[in-house]
Amino acid sequence: MMKQQEIGFIGLGMLGKPMALNLLKKGYNLKIYNKTSEKALSLVEHGAEVKNNPWEVADPGGIVMSCVSDDKALKSVVGENGEIAKILGHDGIHVSMSTILPKTAIRLAQQQAAFGGYYIAAPVMGRPDAVQAKSQSYFIAGEEAAKTRVKPILEGISMKIFDFGNNPADANVAKLAANFLIASAVESMAEAFTFTAKNGADPNKLLEAIGETMFACPIYQNYGRQILNKNYLEPLFKLSLGLKDIRLIAETAADSHTPMRFLRILEDRFSAAVAHDRSNYDWTGIAAEIEAEAGL
Amino acid sequence: MMKQQEIGFIGLGMLGKPMALNLLKKGYNLKIYNKTSEKALSLVEHGAEVKNNPWEVADPGGIVMSCVSDDKALKSVVGENGEIAKILGHDGIHVSMSTILPKTAIRLAQQQAAFGGYYIAAPVMGRPDAVQAKSQSYFIAGEEAAKTRVKPILEGISMKIFDFGNNPADANVAKLAANFLIASAVESMAEAFTFTAKNGADPNKLLEAIGETMFACPIYQNYGRQILNKNYLEPLFKLSLGLKDIRLIAETAADSHTPMRFLRILEDRFSAAVAHDRSNYDWTGIAAEIEAEAGL
Amino acid sequence: MMKQQEIGFIGLGMLGKPMALNLLKKGYNLKIYNKTSEKALSLVEHGAEVKNNPWEVADPGGIVMSCVSDDKALKSVVGENGEIAKILGHDGIHVSMSTILPKTAIRLAQQQAAFGGYYIAAPVMGRPDAVQAKSQSYFIAGEEAAKTRVKPILEGISMKIFDFGNNPADANVAKLAANFLIASAVESMAEAFTFTAKNGADPNKLLEAIGETMFACPIYQNYGRQILNKNYLEPLFKLSLGLKDIRLIAETAADSHTPMRFLRILEDRFSAAVAHDRSNYDWTGIAAEIEAEAGL
Amino acid sequence: MMKQQEIGFIGLGMLGKPMALNLLKKGYNLKIYNKTSEKALSLVEHGAEVKNNPWEVADPGGIVMSCVSDDKALKSVVGENGEIAKILGHDGIHVSMSTILPKTAIRLAQQQAAFGGYYIAAPVMGRPDAVQAKSQSYFIAGEEAAKTRVKPILEGISMKIFDFGNNPADANVAKLAANFLIASAVESMAEAFTFTAKNGADPNKLLEAIGETMFACPIYQNYGRQILNKNYLEPLFKLSLGLKDIRLIAETAADSHTPMRFLRILEDRFSAAVAHDRSNYDWTGIAAEIEAEAGL
Repeated sequence: MMKQQEIGFIGLGMLGKPMALNLLKKGYNLKIYNKTSEKALSLVEHGAEVKNNPWEVADPGGIVMSCVSDDKALKSVVGENGEIAKILGHDGIHVSMSTILPKTAIRLAQQQAAFGGYYIAAPVMGRPDAVQAKSQSYFIAGEEAAKTRVKPILEGISMKIFDFGNNPADANVAKLAANFLIASAVESMAEAFTFTAKNGADPNKLLEAIGETMFACPIYQNYGRQILNKNYLEPLFKLSLGLKDIRLIAETAADSHTPMRFLRILEDRFSAAVAHDRSNYDWTGIAAEIEAEAGL
Repeated sequence: MMKQQEIGFIGLGMLGKPMALNLLKKGYNLKIYNKTSEKALSLVEHGAEVKNNPWEVADPGGIVMSCVSDDKALKSVVGENGEIAKILGHDGIHVSMSTILPKTAIRLAQQQAAFGGYYIAAPVMGRPDAVQAKSQSYFIAGEEAAKTRVKPILEGISMKIFDFGNNPADANVAKLAANFLIASAVESMAEAFTFTAKNGADPNKLLEAIGETMFACPIYQNYGRQILNKNYLEPLFKLSLGLKDIRLIAETAADSHTPMRFLRILEDRFSAAVAHDRSNYDWTGIAAEIEAEAGL
Repeated sequence: MMKQQEIGFIGLGMLGKPMALNLLKKGYNLKIYNKTSEKALSLVEHGAEVKNNPWEVADPGGIVMSCVSDDKALKSVVGENGEIAKILGHDGIHVSMSTILPKTAIRLAQQQAAFGGYYIAAPVMGRPDAVQAKSQSYFIAGEEAAKTRVKPILEGISMKIFDFGNNPADANVAKLAANFLIASAVESMAEAFTFTAKNGADPNKLLEAIGETMFACPIYQNYGRQILNKNYLEPLFKLSLGLKDIRLIAETAADSHTPMRFLRILEDRFSAAVAHDRSNYDWTGIAAEIEAEAGL
Repeated sequence: MMKQQEIGFIGLGMLGKPMALNLLKKGYNLKIYNKTSEKALSLVEHGAEVKNNPWEVADPGGIVMSCVSDDKALKSVVGENGEIAKILGHDGIHVSMSTILPKTAIRLAQQQAAFGGYYIAAPVMGRPDAVQAKSQSYFIAGEEAAKTRVKPILEGISMKIFDFGNNPADANVAKLAANFLIASAVESMAEAFTFTAKNGADPNKLLEAIGETMFACPIYQNYGRQILNKNYLEPLFKLSLGLKDIRLIAETAADSHTPMRFLRILEDRFSAAVAHDRSNYDWTGIAAEIEAEAGL
């Protein structure tokens, strides 16, 4: 790897910042931008160069990575008229790591292509602590030529890259599906624990039993533990962001006429949680709703 | 272990028979009973003694294990007036491995206690192939004195015993909760795969990605594969039995006033599957309903 | 009408008592029975003869009407071994006005037929105030010969009889379906009102508008008003009884493999209401759950 | 009424055209616009003046009525930069009869106010045959000064006006709530009929019984009949439009954090119906989905 490689990086939130830091530690030169620039400061001492506008992080033919909170924020940083795509120009690559609508990815890929560049969808799968520890994964999709340049960079700061093919939207579809699976696992565990407790048995023993056998995997073990500890107030992924993702999934499902009955339950669950002022809980906090519904 | 120990064994179905065989191989003397006696025959050559009535497998102070299809079958084999409990008498133990209602366990435990004996709930967690390979687990609950005698026997033919305490019903509650979690995982995967496919992405890649990371556990890996292979016609656990379990969970939830929204989805799903003549599918076959609902 | 006709009447609850009173006022001679006999006393001054056992109200070839709270109560009053059917004997008629499982009706009809008698299902459609005002209706089903004798009696104390044919179970199926429709209307109104209020508009105006036009009928007008007045604490039909009916519908739906998605919502709704100590509310009180879920 | 009053009218679809015709018959002078102008032709012989652009129907200080298919169409006809509001100017009124998002109404009202004019929300409640017969109603909301001018016009071509106050959005909220109630009534009837049929009873008798008593109102009587006649192929309101409305309700519910469990069922139901090529059915055609789900 050429240690001196330049990368533009936009979005220094809970996920973006540890990624950027890990890139800096790997030796990349980073031009960074964040809407609120204070967040960028601590990266300066690691060598990052702070810019005042998103398009200033882009170089012709270069790579810009972005990790922002939603579709609207992403549309804003790429610019109404595709400013970043324009500057990146021929062979330039936008690596978009946000969880957004597949149809937004398609539109941005077309915009990028109009200037001879590439759009690589690379939504990140993992929470901030995982990203910091480089144990997150990426769902990647886009044109081969561009992926070949992007993959080594992402591999250096993560556990694994999963390739979903040439259509950028596909990585976003898969990311939304994966988030749906996590939220469904949370709901089902919370229902199972509530059922167990309401009938006088010990949900901790249930978690132990399933977590060592058929559900011996991080989501059940870790989220299950978090639910039973009612450990919602130091969010690793905020409930309001969970609701945002649920709505992205719902919109994508509606556009494709895909009935999703578990998703419907989740929509109401997250909606009620926000109505009950639980926006700032960790998203496993929907379990508090489930317990309350049962009178626990 | 005393190789010559006597055990009564009732119920030689898909789960009971491999258990009985493994007990015989371990050196136990088995008196066996099955409603349709042909199923018992192949065990005779391994030394089992076939009886014509369930109560004939019981000895005073001894151990009877049962593994039957539902509450009704269990009530039938223990006898209207507790015949087996009566013969087992003081210190006799009934180890009940069926998936039944917690309230049935409570009633049978009282019956057993009336004769000075014990009822140990030990529902089996695993499908026939797992039981054969001794990789299933048991959720056990009941009085310590009896569990001490039962555990070594079950440990000899399984991977692990999880102890849910002194109240037999608790093991059944946990077993129902665990089955609910499996069915929920199936529904959520099938919805996620359908969503992925309807939006043009590849569900196989999704399964690979989640199965190697956050859902790296048997249920997601194995059931997920089964769903994607549409491999429903050689059932390891029949859909009609799945529906039976769903109804047991629903009844227990209703009795305890526990709202369970995912369970409601599953009730309709299994009900529709049976209405569509899919009773004999493997229970992962509810995925066929989910795909059909989406027009796939 | 022969004013001196004898009728046995069992069950003097909120519905049974005003029926019995209206029969007395019509000139029928009533032998009455209620589990707790105090309830019968006020009818004595209207000429009723109180009996100490349910079977004592029956005469050979006569008519017994019953209106009790559930399947279990009905099974109890008809007697373990069909005592009432036996006494009623040839041409005797049991008119069963309770809301029960269709399969219970089938069983009781068979029992009655075994003694040469008839079982007429005639579940009552209406709340206590309606019954008192003779504005309730009956869903009737059973053999013609018997219905011919029963109809004039019921017509004298109600607004209308709807005939569902020769199979007694059919009237119970229809009654359960009708109750499901009412509960669904309540849920949908409460959701609509909550939606309206949460978005800053006035649900009272909504009710006025729909209640004068497309939903100009008693259920929407009266129940809608009750919901908006939050008038739950003087129940005309208790929420716990509503839950009982929901469970009868659910059991019948499950037995016939009929998915019913609105019913699932109602199951959880009533279950949560009971978990939140609202058993004694009027069953429109599920609206309180719906508002609370939305944070109102 | 001044017979010579001028009105601009935009949108000559299934609802708009009979409205426009009734206005012409009342003696109003109409300048009309429709995206596809053929639809306008038959109105010319009744005296309407056809325009080629939506803003040409507006006069300073005058009234423009619009009745178009969705939010997007409405945004298009009012013009990107508020062309119609600009021409209508001071005291001009836009009467918007479409079923749209409340938040769209708010935005358009602000736009109108910016030019000194008024936006009156007046969504129409009724199907084309009702509109033709002047038996529809309007949910009206907006500033009094403008409503005073609009009401007499609408009263001349309808059965009744329901006033939801000064905030235009409130009429749209109520309209969405009313459509939700209709769709819920359809789903609940279809479930009830399916339940009845699956259990061997006659849903026609059920409809007769409830339609004469507690549900003696147009929605139950007419839609109920339509469902039982499986009369879906001559749509009075197309299923695809129903889905559009369901999505408007869902978006409004999500924005206001209002859980709506029945709505969730409807979302999946309509989505599945479209996935099964039933877009062109009448929206009561979701009943076909419900029957199919139950294997009928």
